[in-house]
Amino acid sequence: MRKVSIIGVGQTRYGNLKDETLRDLIAEAGCKAIKEANIKRKEIQAFYLGNYDAVSFIKQNHLAPYGAGAIGLKDIPCIHVEGACSSGALAIREGIIAIGAGLYDIVLVVGAEKMNSLSTEDVTEILAQAGDYETELLAGATFPSIFGMIARRHMYQYGTKREHLAAVAVKNHSNGAKNPDAHIQKKVTFETVMECDRMVADPLTVYDCSLISDGASAVVLCATELVSNFCKKTIEILSIGQASDSFSMHLKDDITTFDATVKAANQAYKIAGLKPSDIDVAEVHDCFTIAEIIAIEDLGFVKKGEGGESSFSGLTSLTGEIPVNPSGGLKSKGHPVGATGVGQIVEIVRQLRDEAGLRQIKGAEIGLAHNFGGSGATAIVTILRRAN
Amino acid sequence: MRKVSIIGVGQTRYGNLKDETLRDLIAEAGCKAIKEANIKRKEIQAFYLGNYDAVSFIKQNHLAPYGAGAIGLKDIPCIHVEGACSSGALAIREGIIAIGAGLYDIVLVVGAEKMNSLSTEDVTEILAQAGDYETELLAGATFPSIFGMIARRHMYQYGTKREHLAAVAVKNHSNGAKNPDAHIQKKVTFETVMECDRMVADPLTVYDCSLISDGASAVVLCATELVSNFCKKTIEILSIGQASDSFSMHLKDDITTFDATVKAANQAYKIAGLKPSDIDVAEVHDCFTIAEIIAIEDLGFVKKGEGGESSFSGLTSLTGEIPVNPSGGLKSKGHPVGATGVGQIVEIVRQLRDEAGLRQIKGAEIGLAHNFGGSGATAIVTILRRAN
Repeated sequence: MRKVSIIGVGQTRYGNLKDETLRDLIAEAGCKAIKEANIKRKEIQAFYLGNYDAVSFIKQNHLAPYGAGAIGLKDIPCIHVEGACSSGALAIREGIIAIGAGLYDIVLVVGAEKMNSLSTEDVTEILAQAGDYETELLAGATFPSIFGMIARRHMYQYGTKREHLAAVAVKNHSNGAKNPDAHIQKKVTFETVMECDRMVADPLTVYDCSLISDGASAVVLCATELVSNFCKKTIEILSIGQASDSFSMHLKDDITTFDATVKAANQAYKIAGLKPSDIDVAEVHDCFTIAEIIAIEDLGFVKKGEGGESSFSGLTSLTGEIPVNPSGGLKSKGHPVGATGVGQIVEIVRQLRDEAGLRQIKGAEIGLAHNFGGSGATAIVTILRRAN
Repeated sequence: MRKVSIIGVGQTRYGNLKDETLRDLIAEAGCKAIKEANIKRKEIQAFYLGNYDAVSFIKQNHLAPYGAGAIGLKDIPCIHVEGACSSGALAIREGIIAIGAGLYDIVLVVGAEKMNSLSTEDVTEILAQAGDYETELLAGATFPSIFGMIARRHMYQYGTKREHLAAVAVKNHSNGAKNPDAHIQKKVTFETVMECDRMVADPLTVYDCSLISDGASAVVLCATELVSNFCKKTIEILSIGQASDSFSMHLKDDITTFDATVKAANQAYKIAGLKPSDIDVAEVHDCFTIAEIIAIEDLGFVKKGEGGESSFSGLTSLTGEIPVNPSGGLKSKGHPVGATGVGQIVEIVRQLRDEAGLRQIKGAEIGLAHNFGGSGATAIVTILRRAN
């Protein structure tokens, strides 16, 4: 496969964006990325859109040409991919493959979701449809309850404590307070989180759950052999691994690890010729605080069972050994489902370009993004490097 | 890109399949294709699923690992693509690109839809979400009304008659009567169609509209350089073109032609080095009888405006100069939306292998499939050839 790089990124602010439609969000992110890449619309040869469920949120489907039209693109192949909360990374991966195949030189990828059109109860049910309807949702198992069980089991198996979960929330809110695109730009204290009695699904309180956000993120992908024509601050995609796991929770051997993450990460490390300790900065899929703890274990940043201590000890802070979720993560930057995987790449690109402002990781040269769907049935791990 | 061939196909019967879930349908089609290809599950390196809207039909999303699990596939990348009624061909195209890139050698593609879980009224609204919700569905414009307008305009502009539409229905029902997988396996007479007073959207009666079907179709794709290991009756994919058009009807210059079909066909003919007269058999997207008439014009089988006469004169019959929809088409074989594009390829493969039974086109060596989404915003044209 030909090598692929990123020559431009764009993003809306994430949040409860009452005045903006899905069309508006896609248009804003897409046009910003096109402008940053300094290309003309007609140079874009294909459009990939990551979106989870605009049908339920805004009664719109056939989403790729819908989104392309909003950006002013016409005629070119437009492809909508869905992979639950990993729809964004999935769209990027399909775009990379198409350039890798030599079919196109320049591809625009947008991830977007408009979620705040509905109530929290309805959103929770719509998200739960990324799990097994027949064996989980029908039994009342929405994602907070599933991740509550996962947290309890991790506590039982590895001695993870409530304090460990709280430390993830404190860190990610601290990072998000430094991100002008974040949904919640406000620090929270450890005491506030520990004293919170707004339980969602034991042991998870509202501080353990990611946000219901509107937003869109975009990247312009380009064959690496051609990037010198477009951009001075190129970011190379070294590898992008993808794997799957059993769709239903009851078929998993161990709910404290996500097999698909482990397999996708192993692919990505192998293709890039790197190991976990080579990563300077990571964005991981913290749909719940426990998910970040498990992610850093599954990605090999810490040993299995030792993820709990990481935020608490400062290992994953902006100045730690392996900074995790400098953007604020899904917890504080927000989680517009289809946008999330693309937004993680946007953050890594900004970090590797030294453009991340107050949350900049000094000297970051290699970054990793980890995006997963449902209760882990899809996982995608991408490794990127500053080229110049 | 590496060349890609088809080494196995599988299909459920299309119909109102009350006893079968979406899981059952995907499993049946996928397993039949795997068996026909004579491969083991572990040889499949990626799984692509075409599905339009299982969320609305059965409250299930995150569909690729859901479908993979039903077939007994695990670990491998699973990708769900959505392109309205062209979701199936879109999934095949993404699979072809991934093999073309050298990423995989063998890929399974399934297209599937379970639609009869809901009432006709609800299905019509769900399908209408493939059009522009803001400018069309909110104004009450569902697809029957849009295609009714298109038919009236084609009549006005080219003198197309009610009789011409009826002849398409008669031909496709005659073909479908010879297809054991078809939803309706029953001939209708010209008089019955002409006398029908069950108007759906003037001038379209129930005989002009495709069916609401459950069903699944599957193909196993393989790098052409490796097919000799697997299969004696290989079908080569010579080309697969894709293009887009304005998403909203009011932005089109001319509603009697589908720009995306014309562009996708031109790509496909050019890459294959062929012209319309080289095609021995075609499956085209007859979601309404008028759509078949426009398709054969846009694909270049007849001159613009002369599509109406084609079924009437016998040009497109099983023994005609260019047989169209030998399977019975969406009109009689049925239209389980996400399955349709894959099902068209299954039919062309069977025709080119001389395995189409009573509806076999004698000596067919080159076939074409045309699948489009919504009111034409996505179109995909595939050209296939018998290899041995």
